Amino acid sequence: MQQTKLPFGHYKVPQVKEDSYITGLKLANSLKGSELIPFIPINGRQVNFYYCGPTVYSNSHLGHARTYLGIDVIRRTLRDYFHYDLLSVMNITDIDDKIITGANAAKQDFLEFTKIWEKDFFDAMEALNIELPDVITRVSDYVPEIVTFIQKIISNGYAYESNGSVYFDVQKYIADGHTYPKMRPEVNAELLQEGEGESQLNKQSEKKSPYDFALWKSSKPEEPKWQSPWGEGRPGWHIECSVMASAILGNPIDLHAGGIDLLFPHHDNSLAQAEACFNCEQWINYFIHLGHLNIADRKMSKSLKNFMTIEEVLKRYTPRQVRLNFAIHQYDAPQNYSEEQMEQAIAKDKSYQEFFQNTKIYLRESQVTDAQKWTENDFQLSALLRSTKQIIHQALINNFDFPTVVDATDKLINQVNIQIASKNVRAPLINSVINYVNFIFGLLGINYQTLLSNQIDIQPLMEQVCSIRDKVKVAAKNNDFESIINAVTQKQIQYEKNISNYLVDAINQFQQEVLIASQNKNKQQIFQICDKLRDQQLFDLGIKIEDKDQSSIWKQYDIQELKLEKLQQQILLQQKEQQRKKEELEKLEKAKLSPKEFFSQQTDKYLEFDESGLPIKDKDGNELSKKQKKVVQELWEKQNKLYTQYLEQQKQQQ
Amino acid sequence: MQQTKLPFGHYKVPQVKEDSYITGLKLANSLKGSELIPFIPINGRQVNFYYCGPTVYSNSHLGHARTYLGIDVIRRTLRDYFHYDLLSVMNITDIDDKIITGANAAKQDFLEFTKIWEKDFFDAMEALNIELPDVITRVSDYVPEIVTFIQKIISNGYAYESNGSVYFDVQKYIADGHTYPKMRPEVNAELLQEGEGESQLNKQSEKKSPYDFALWKSSKPEEPKWQSPWGEGRPGWHIECSVMASAILGNPIDLHAGGIDLLFPHHDNSLAQAEACFNCEQWINYFIHLGHLNIADRKMSKSLKNFMTIEEVLKRYTPRQVRLNFAIHQYDAPQNYSEEQMEQAIAKDKSYQEFFQNTKIYLRESQVTDAQKWTENDFQLSALLRSTKQIIHQALINNFDFPTVVDATDKLINQVNIQIASKNVRAPLINSVINYVNFIFGLLGINYQTLLSNQIDIQPLMEQVCSIRDKVKVAAKNNDFESIINAVTQKQIQYEKNISNYLVDAINQFQQEVLIASQNKNKQQIFQICDKLRDQQLFDLGIKIEDKDQSSIWKQYDIQELKLEKLQQQILLQQKEQQRKKEELEKLEKAKLSPKEFFSQQTDKYLEFDESGLPIKDKDGNELSKKQKKVVQELWEKQNKLYTQYLEQQKQQQ
Repeated sequence: MQQTKLPFGHYKVPQVKEDSYITGLKLANSLKGSELIPFIPINGRQVNFYYCGPTVYSNSHLGHARTYLGIDVIRRTLRDYFHYDLLSVMNITDIDDKIITGANAAKQDFLEFTKIWEKDFFDAMEALNIELPDVITRVSDYVPEIVTFIQKIISNGYAYESNGSVYFDVQKYIADGHTYPKMRPEVNAELLQEGEGESQLNKQSEKKSPYDFALWKSSKPEEPKWQSPWGEGRPGWHIECSVMASAILGNPIDLHAGGIDLLFPHHDNSLAQAEACFNCEQWINYFIHLGHLNIADRKMSKSLKNFMTIEEVLKRYTPRQVRLNFAIHQYDAPQNYSEEQMEQAIAKDKSYQEFFQNTKIYLRESQVTDAQKWTENDFQLSALLRSTKQIIHQALINNFDFPTVVDATDKLINQVNIQIASKNVRAPLINSVINYVNFIFGLLGINYQTLLSNQIDIQPLMEQVCSIRDKVKVAAKNNDFESIINAVTQKQIQYEKNISNYLVDAINQFQQEVLIASQNKNKQQIFQICDKLRDQQLFDLGIKIEDKDQSSIWKQYDIQELKLEKLQQQILLQQKEQQRKKEELEKLEKAKLSPKEFFSQQTDKYLEFDESGLPIKDKDGNELSKKQKKVVQELWEKQNKLYTQYLEQQKQQQ
Repeated sequence: MQQTKLPFGHYKVPQVKEDSYITGLKLANSLKGSELIPFIPINGRQVNFYYCGPTVYSNSHLGHARTYLGIDVIRRTLRDYFHYDLLSVMNITDIDDKIITGANAAKQDFLEFTKIWEKDFFDAMEALNIELPDVITRVSDYVPEIVTFIQKIISNGYAYESNGSVYFDVQKYIADGHTYPKMRPEVNAELLQEGEGESQLNKQSEKKSPYDFALWKSSKPEEPKWQSPWGEGRPGWHIECSVMASAILGNPIDLHAGGIDLLFPHHDNSLAQAEACFNCEQWINYFIHLGHLNIADRKMSKSLKNFMTIEEVLKRYTPRQVRLNFAIHQYDAPQNYSEEQMEQAIAKDKSYQEFFQNTKIYLRESQVTDAQKWTENDFQLSALLRSTKQIIHQALINNFDFPTVVDATDKLINQVNIQIASKNVRAPLINSVINYVNFIFGLLGINYQTLLSNQIDIQPLMEQVCSIRDKVKVAAKNNDFESIINAVTQKQIQYEKNISNYLVDAINQFQQEVLIASQNKNKQQIFQICDKLRDQQLFDLGIKIEDKDQSSIWKQYDIQELKLEKLQQQILLQQKEQQRKKEELEKLEKAKLSPKEFFSQQTDKYLEFDESGLPIKDKDGNELSKKQKKVVQELWEKQNKLYTQYLEQQKQQQ
């Protein structure tokens, strides 16, 4: 046996060829123990990418969100940042034990059943702005290809039929110098050992060795079945990826991804099957794994009541907030999901939104004909932009280190906020920064620009509304009702055809009400009407007005997001309120104790007490020191005060 | 003199360093006679880019459009395709003879005057969706830097003061081994010759040599003036670019661009000045030039009445159409602008718009849960997408060969049109093609997606409207007025808050009118109302309905563009009509001639005629052959017929 015993000694880094497209990208390759390996596609810029899709038998949950958001960001980055020519394939597992159980329970045909959950999955993906793969492969579409594939493995001598099922012959495979499992060297070593000794064949089993796994299972009654050379049966779980990935992408394949929970046995078996079928050494060149997700420090499971569906999560958080929460964690590291974490993401999201809002206003208010000569500020910001680009580039080629990317972006944004506040930086440069930040967020599948894009439509209208409302307020301060009437009647507000009729109505109503109020010389009412326009009418349409001393600015938001923002704030308040109540209750309970009772409970601290209940010996029976006595004396008085207050209350309540 | 006599022997290709970012891009470098030179920036991905802006003294015209659209596409491609870190500077020439003349004529301060035309320029750029540079430098902001710069050149011995002005000393410069003019070897050779002989100093002139050019001009009265060591004066034209480019980007600079008309003397002098100031060999590494633009085969000029302002052009064509017209010509080749050419661009634009519309509908109508297994069609289209990407990549690295890019994109689009018509290709793959095509158009500054993005808002509404209208039409065919009334009354149409009130009104009106017409059992009227909704009410809102036999589909367009489209069609009709009238008139004039007069005019063909006016000898005095006689006989009768008809008409008119 010529095989090296080095862990991961089997792995060969793809060769650099003349047409190789080298970007400097390095990936944590599970085929080499997560070592960072330079990414070299087989054909120029072309990258063939396969990743494991869901088994469709119930709701898509937060675990799916983590895995497929991670893959989505990786796809966007490979395509939009590194400009690889990506062809990506994702499978749908629609034949599986859980599915069969579920379908039988639901008294549905298994394909009716899976279609329901497949739709649930893709709806969740769309809601999270996760792009579709180029190719979707369903196992139920590939059974004939699977049978042919298994036949090839058998004819290569690496699988055997047994009692209507077909199993992969691990020992034979290893004996011929192949490595299995490639990504689990410790198991591989074990198997090599064993290979030299006697293969202890389990007589009870259909399998030659306990390590052998099923490629084809003879179907039990009530299970979906397909004809095969081995009788009616169905594919084993692992075979599908080997078959469907090669059906579209062939052999070898550049990149394979999936959740870390699939690494063994699923991915190792997929590798073995394909390499056994093609009699090749390395079917996949790069295998990357998305980190495991815990919910509040525990594995997510229905029993633990920390199972969260994507639908539920999106009732509380916007897709952007969810995406950000995952983006600020390294894709291949384990992550723990918690509400506190989401609070961080919400805060970040808010600061990014304000960055785009405020820079937009800065550009809106500056003219290209303004002073344009660069000052020290501009040179500094320009230099920061360039160094940020370098930091981000280094982070991206370093196994998609997005935490660092987000961090560098934050620093850049903070600088811009400072600069535009001081109003001493050139607008074209700010515009360049916006474009870059927008590009980077695009890699995260996040876009704040489209959020603002329709703003163009209402800009002329809102300029008019703000200026009229400002006039009204200033005039009201001076009791100058004359000019108020002029302000709201003098000139017709111009509307675009595509302005929402709700907005138009709100503004007309505002003008009407102001007119009447000023005819009645009712100053207070006028201010109330101005506030109502800001806090209710426009707010409900997603428009926020911010009042400065003499003038006001306006910002447009997504209506649904504003509603969600309100909800999030309410939930936070409720949680605070509950906390407060809890503490009050504890305080009350404590107050019910006389000082004597209060100390007598603390047997873990004190052993002996005097008649008033004051401790005199600690738990070890030692006399209390002067200092300690002083302390317990104070505690006694404090408790006594609480207790007497409590008794007072009791009396009053009688 | 160690200088090589080789043309362009002075040019040195930038060295590849360890951190060099090599994309394979080659540029036609004017510093090497437009030879294609591998593009190697000085610092990694960073590219410092300077390009010559406008002299602001009158309207921006089509020449500006060509130059700055070209530069815009190059900037987007360097940044968004090749991912260079671009810092781009454009100057505004606001000190210049033409400006001074114009300002004096307008009795304005020259800066008031230039601000007007600067705004005109930037408005035109914005209208054409041309991005602002990162840095705008105005000459009037940099006079102190210019003075210092000139002093440095003098102290280096390459310029001299003469009568309050300062000139560049070309002979001294060459004598020290510098090359001038770098991009005009023939002139350079001449100067080298001369340098060896006697410098024939023109006594009348302030200049040592006729080739010397002004760095600083002493101001005449009524000219703006600035203090300087040489008295009150103003900068020469050429000095500004040397000073402002290095003030922001330093020395050396990666890339310099401008219109070909500026190559000599302006760009050559800019090079000489900077290299004389920094005493360096190569201030600019790559100098690219935008090709010259002719209008209808002639140089554009007001006198030739073919001077077209951008404002005028945009009254007839959309920015996209104008951009496309330039995109389909190589940026550095001469181009001839004509209406026929614009017709091509319009046709292309229309086909692209329909591509995005139809694919959008294809995606709208397909479900992710549809059959997804790839067929031969999908494999072929996927392969075409990949080969297209390779062709486009090769074209882009080949000096931004966008004509080839557009051509390859067209082929891809045609294939997709065929595939979606046959409805036998997977939607996710179509989606990937759309994303790629959209990305490529993005390099051209063209975006058809945003055009459609707001479609999401009206989609649910339009689905309802189309289905109701379809029901109404089918029922009307069957005189089933009952169901028509149900269709328009049964269920309320759902509106989004952000739907235009015009659209809502149109639909309500439609339903009202249909209701009344069907109560009156007026079938014809119902059809008319359905057509009115399609051809007037919705069309005016930018929504086109296309009726298929039983059902209908809807598409949304930009309202302004639809109007422009109508206008363009009208203009075409008018032109055809004028042509028709012209021909009619000629025919009428011809008919006024008797056969005798008709031939007698043709002295260029015939020498002798018989009494009826029939030719008997050709112009050389030879008898007409039988064949010729037969021909003229036929002509005679044809003309006679026309003539008699004419006489008839005359009679009737009396």
